Amino acid sequence: MFLVEGNKIITELHNSRYKIREIFSTNPFDDNLIKFSNNLIAEITQRDLQKVSFLQNPKDSVALCELPASHEKATDLNIVLDGIQDPGNLGTIIRLADWFGIDQIVCSEDTVDVYNPKVIQATMGSFTRVNVVYTSLSEFLGSTEHINLGTDMDGKNIYEFSFPEKFNLILGNEGNGMRPETESLLHQKITIPRFGKNKLTESLNVSMAAGIILGEIFSKR
Amino acid sequence: MFLVEGNKIITELHNSRYKIREIFSTNPFDDNLIKFSNNLIAEITQRDLQKVSFLQNPKDSVALCELPASHEKATDLNIVLDGIQDPGNLGTIIRLADWFGIDQIVCSEDTVDVYNPKVIQATMGSFTRVNVVYTSLSEFLGSTEHINLGTDMDGKNIYEFSFPEKFNLILGNEGNGMRPETESLLHQKITIPRFGKNKLTESLNVSMAAGIILGEIFSKR
Repeated sequence: MFLVEGNKIITELHNSRYKIREIFSTNPFDDNLIKFSNNLIAEITQRDLQKVSFLQNPKDSVALCELPASHEKATDLNIVLDGIQDPGNLGTIIRLADWFGIDQIVCSEDTVDVYNPKVIQATMGSFTRVNVVYTSLSEFLGSTEHINLGTDMDGKNIYEFSFPEKFNLILGNEGNGMRPETESLLHQKITIPRFGKNKLTESLNVSMAAGIILGEIFSKR
Repeated sequence: MFLVEGNKIITELHNSRYKIREIFSTNPFDDNLIKFSNNLIAEITQRDLQKVSFLQNPKDSVALCELPASHEKATDLNIVLDGIQDPGNLGTIIRLADWFGIDQIVCSEDTVDVYNPKVIQATMGSFTRVNVVYTSLSEFLGSTEHINLGTDMDGKNIYEFSFPEKFNLILGNEGNGMRPETESLLHQKITIPRFGKNKLTESLNVSMAAGIILGEIFSKR
């Protein structure tokens, strides 16, 4: 099972594929909570909430949810993550996928767990609307009929690139980038050009890079 | 004075307008540190470093720097921040400005301090290359000859908008957006369209929105 925190996100579980097992709330008669939940809501003290919560300042409730089975589905555009480690990055990328209407994120088996409480929190509820699956990227990228596009320091300028109809957008680990086996399965490398002139400038964070690339892709769709 | 942490960023102070007063390092004979610093480097223990550092896991050195005087300068494109509170967001926006070669960020007086250690850290050294000034936005935006563009939920679609030659891109507070006085000085509102269909989707974080808008602006320059 996994934990979802805060009434706002808990109410988004309604109409999603997630099943709530139990809710614990400091305010079990909250209108929204009752409206959206058929479950028994147990009242707990702020002190107990603090103990079970992963947040520094938990506000109202936590919901204990069942881990669903997850299956790959056919989509025109997949975001593919090769070993993303930071929960905030995965959460932000799920939120971006939801914003752009991308249905699926395919993760290497060593990518941080989507049910990590920090990931769930960073998605702001978007995890209920994006299918996140874990699989062997060699198999997935090796057997796909989509074009495999990967970000790289010296790839094709995204502003001059025609994105194909169906593709997988592959993003690598924060420190080390993609694994060589993943890189060997790319059909095309793409890059966000740096407009600033200073070479000391750090490359963009992976979730920011994802946002800028997706913005560019959808500007052309 | 303010603190800069880590050899990698400390060496970037070289050739910047920042003056280092003192360096404290667990490894004062580090080649890079010595090469880039004319200052005396005091050796300290890991335990003392831990005490003076704002990081959970400080690695090598901290530099005590002098706060410089900062002055507005004339630039074609300013990022303008109205009450940004989160140090990570300000740091990320400074890093974005550096990436896109934007020289200046103009902040309302209640925007988080650029010399807050968390901001400095989040910039990954980019604070040395971007001029960040604090001023009254009513005065700045009221007297500018640039076009004032502000992000808003119902503004013009950025993908269909022709960005002018000289403009100020105004971003509001994380929770409350822009102040009404700031909003009243806008010439045009712009928006990133949400391609996903679900209305529960949270609007994008302010630094992510900045990244996507800047990506779009520079794709047209």
